[in-house]
Amino acid sequence: MTCFIDALRRLPTNKTPVWLMRQAGRYLPEYREVRAKAGNFMTLCKTPELACEVTLQPLKRFDLDAAILFSDILVIPDAMGLGLSFAEGEGPQFANPVRDAKTIAELIIPNPQKSLSYVIDTIRLIIRELNGRLPLIGFAGSPWTVATYMVEGRSTKNFSIIKKMMYREPALLKQLLDKIAQATILYLNAQIEAGVQAIQLFDTWGGVLNESCYREFSLYYMETILQQLKREVNGKTIPVIFFTKGGGQWLDVIANSGCDAVGLDWMTDIGEARQRIGNKVALQGNLDPSVLYAEPAQIRQQVKAIIASYRDAGIDKTGHIFNLGHGIYPDTPIESVEVMIEAVREFS
Amino acid sequence: MTCFIDALRRLPTNKTPVWLMRQAGRYLPEYREVRAKAGNFMTLCKTPELACEVTLQPLKRFDLDAAILFSDILVIPDAMGLGLSFAEGEGPQFANPVRDAKTIAELIIPNPQKSLSYVIDTIRLIIRELNGRLPLIGFAGSPWTVATYMVEGRSTKNFSIIKKMMYREPALLKQLLDKIAQATILYLNAQIEAGVQAIQLFDTWGGVLNESCYREFSLYYMETILQQLKREVNGKTIPVIFFTKGGGQWLDVIANSGCDAVGLDWMTDIGEARQRIGNKVALQGNLDPSVLYAEPAQIRQQVKAIIASYRDAGIDKTGHIFNLGHGIYPDTPIESVEVMIEAVREFS
Repeated sequence: MTCFIDALRRLPTNKTPVWLMRQAGRYLPEYREVRAKAGNFMTLCKTPELACEVTLQPLKRFDLDAAILFSDILVIPDAMGLGLSFAEGEGPQFANPVRDAKTIAELIIPNPQKSLSYVIDTIRLIIRELNGRLPLIGFAGSPWTVATYMVEGRSTKNFSIIKKMMYREPALLKQLLDKIAQATILYLNAQIEAGVQAIQLFDTWGGVLNESCYREFSLYYMETILQQLKREVNGKTIPVIFFTKGGGQWLDVIANSGCDAVGLDWMTDIGEARQRIGNKVALQGNLDPSVLYAEPAQIRQQVKAIIASYRDAGIDKTGHIFNLGHGIYPDTPIESVEVMIEAVREFS
Repeated sequence: MTCFIDALRRLPTNKTPVWLMRQAGRYLPEYREVRAKAGNFMTLCKTPELACEVTLQPLKRFDLDAAILFSDILVIPDAMGLGLSFAEGEGPQFANPVRDAKTIAELIIPNPQKSLSYVIDTIRLIIRELNGRLPLIGFAGSPWTVATYMVEGRSTKNFSIIKKMMYREPALLKQLLDKIAQATILYLNAQIEAGVQAIQLFDTWGGVLNESCYREFSLYYMETILQQLKREVNGKTIPVIFFTKGGGQWLDVIANSGCDAVGLDWMTDIGEARQRIGNKVALQGNLDPSVLYAEPAQIRQQVKAIIASYRDAGIDKTGHIFNLGHGIYPDTPIESVEVMIEAVREFS
């Protein structure tokens, strides 16, 4: 139970804990079956029994050290009334993107016990099923990342619309980011109350900013959330992981933000990261998910290299949580995941 | 004439030279007119008079310090017979992607004087028109970047097919990269012979690799090209710029590669970059192209911040070439480019 949480707190553990971003997902046939039964992705998210079922699926197959709530970072704007849908193969889309002062002013901060109650119910079901065997990770998107979808209306290559807003009407964008942050605080506090034992903030798109904009428009709002979480539960603090994809150059500021752990993508060498930030936080990562397309010998070698790089940094042998550097790809062979986890056990 | 070249050689200049990646492009109405006349993008590339005309267009409008050949990094695989086309709004596509040993073994290294003669003719026309007023930059893609399109067949999000090849059949991928490198050496030497005065290698996708793969599959082949270029012309060396988008964490190895200048995307702070690599190479960049969506005052402030960051690094006041951190976006207002260039003049 405690290995993953202990590593986040940088306490000694008898192994390197491991979980995978998107570990409940399309690469699993049993997931695809439940997904087909649900009809569409949002119905799956909104049906606690099914969301609980898919959350638990990877734990039955693999020797993982944590569960992560099955949900999506865009449930908050969905609860704000933006009309979220997932077109097959196209990613998320909002029927009502948010681009002007009036729309932003009128956005309502959702009460998680009402419009997001399906998530809270899902967490309660999962906690009951896990029965203390493994910890459950709750999560949300960073306000900047969530805002990119709300403003652009869909996935984007250049982030032109939101960046135009950022450079032309920064106060307006900050009003939006602040509303998302407030909604996220309520939402994550409800997750904690329902029983999650750790939290990850996914900042998938912080890395498209320059450093000063990253601090001002992304990290600042992640810190705002962190400071207002009710993290003390039964005398212990719920650890929080910050994951900014493409944030490798700003590790120092991220590690100084007050978070307990920093998630790394595969572009950063984990040993160099440890040397740069010293003993401050735990580090999570960071295998390129495409390594899982390789033959077993190559997968083992790449896992070994990451664990060796971390250890050879010589600063803090504890505080490493093994993970991918990004969500697992839908066409990943299941056997590769088995090989990867076995390699983590063997080399750590 | 010499300001840009002098800056690349880190000689003192009386101003900070400036040019823009994709400065001849869709944001210019006069470009769109010629493009429409040509019918499609490849015809524009392959018609020396038209390619020369669009190369010169931005120089007539703006006070720029260099011209860059109008062409595309994919003309080499096109000359190899892969059937390049550009679907409207979809980016490049290859009718015949390259994915197996037989296809790779059969790839022919094009003779640039034959199948790429249209580029050589374009360069000769431009040099004649420029008549020594401004230097002309020649360019090619990095072998890794060109290979991503050849193997994937089109733009991609996860680079799954080529990464699968990289991890499962590295020797095969290296055979492909080596062929592209050999073709690029011949092609760039022909560009030098035709009169270009500097060269940039565009490594648009090196940043999707981890560090060891970046060194092995991308930078190595850029170095291979560099070493085999006939760069001595009239007793002077043609300077070469390496631009790896997303390569900010590997600046040290890039700066040690033997190139004369390193292009930076906007995720790297240019002053920190200068401090990290010391006095080794010139630095080019690095305004986020989306800043050009902003009001003039904001554009000026962002330009000023970059120039100040470079100067305050205190290592080498010479050796900065101002540029964007990526190609200019098609919907950029022309007035913004004017404001940006004026600001470079004012603050440098």
